Amino acid sequence: MAKQNIYDNETFFTEYSKLREREVNANNLFELPTLFRMLPELQGKTVLDLGCGTGERCIDYLDRGAVEVTGVDISEKMLNVARSKNSDPRITYLNMPMEDIGAIDRRFDVVISSLALHYVEDFPGVVKNVFKLLNEDGIFLFSQEHPLATCHSGTGDRWTRDENGIKLYANIANYCVEGQKDSTWFVEGVLRYHRMFSTIVNTLTDNGFTILRMEEPYPTDEIIRKYPEYYDNYHKPDFLFVKAAK
Amino acid sequence: MAKQNIYDNETFFTEYSKLREREVNANNLFELPTLFRMLPELQGKTVLDLGCGTGERCIDYLDRGAVEVTGVDISEKMLNVARSKNSDPRITYLNMPMEDIGAIDRRFDVVISSLALHYVEDFPGVVKNVFKLLNEDGIFLFSQEHPLATCHSGTGDRWTRDENGIKLYANIANYCVEGQKDSTWFVEGVLRYHRMFSTIVNTLTDNGFTILRMEEPYPTDEIIRKYPEYYDNYHKPDFLFVKAAK
Repeated sequence: MAKQNIYDNETFFTEYSKLREREVNANNLFELPTLFRMLPELQGKTVLDLGCGTGERCIDYLDRGAVEVTGVDISEKMLNVARSKNSDPRITYLNMPMEDIGAIDRRFDVVISSLALHYVEDFPGVVKNVFKLLNEDGIFLFSQEHPLATCHSGTGDRWTRDENGIKLYANIANYCVEGQKDSTWFVEGVLRYHRMFSTIVNTLTDNGFTILRMEEPYPTDEIIRKYPEYYDNYHKPDFLFVKAAK
Repeated sequence: MAKQNIYDNETFFTEYSKLREREVNANNLFELPTLFRMLPELQGKTVLDLGCGTGERCIDYLDRGAVEVTGVDISEKMLNVARSKNSDPRITYLNMPMEDIGAIDRRFDVVISSLALHYVEDFPGVVKNVFKLLNEDGIFLFSQEHPLATCHSGTGDRWTRDENGIKLYANIANYCVEGQKDSTWFVEGVLRYHRMFSTIVNTLTDNGFTILRMEEPYPTDEIIRKYPEYYDNYHKPDFLFVKAAK
């Protein structure tokens, strides 16, 4: 199956870096606080970060008590930044597609993946490998693009707006048609893989995981007061989180 | 909290009865086959049917080997039909809102609820009581209206159609705003309670259940060939199923 490495595309990498440097973005407002709130106890634990990118989270996990962090990413460009900006003797960065983690010959207490799994075609394969790589009672926590965000088929716009451009509702087509969705995000042809909620849940439970908690973060009243444009996240959340135990 | 008894409304009851008597409807095409496929082994088991209505399923559960079935419904009208059309010495029909099942002084092996829980405001209360009423390793299987069906806020139509009236996409607003949604279904003011996927999952796991499987049924190719109008179920499924273990 295809292993996508969009982050090594020059244009994508530059534009993506600019986006993530903005102080206010959906990641900082919703994704990151939810990820931190859902983290299991990391004190004394070993952590595998799937799709670690530039390594900020690896440092965060050390700060929260992890004794050792392994960061895996398909993009050498991202890992170069990680090695220069977020280096630590307790962090090992591995350049590999997350489809290949079965080759890692050790186990971890916690596996975390932030916003990477929707790029992966072989979700069951990754889930199987994560299960193998986890110690007994280990925790798998991941975020991904929300199924209502990955499902849009391209028949028209994602949103219907009023005459002032305010988003009235999300246009949802072919939610039940799973698989590869082409989309343009800085460059053309960024591949996302749409999976229904039930498929995500069943892939985990069929492979031995127990679902502990799921979250679909949306803005607090305070966020809406400061950044009313994020009201669209009430209509269609950007992210889905799943926390599961081996 | 409100306990809704729309089925005792005369107009609703008549129109609903007509709908269910149609040979081809979403219940027969998607809901019922999925329910039967997801049923746990019923041989020798005791079953509680929450929102049993006119009792067809109670008979089905006996046919599949259940030794005893208790059917609970808030509507005396529905139970009158059940007692005359679907009577059996092994079936007990109880007229009570499912919010009151905590008063039932016995346990069951399996609790099943077909398309009733979206009428219930106090979902956590029902889940807690189901957990109490189940024997160890008991199974809770339920279907409800899909969260994409319960969430529409009423800003415009549910669907955007092309010039021929074909549904292009579902208009999804305020998915993250949970709670009571007024809607018209034969009569005005049928109350549905919208809950996000994550809320449904977390209510179960927070109260001790283990999620076994979820399904969001959509049409087979054969159904689409025979009844192309059901393609809309690819855009937005009508039903959500959850199977969980105590």
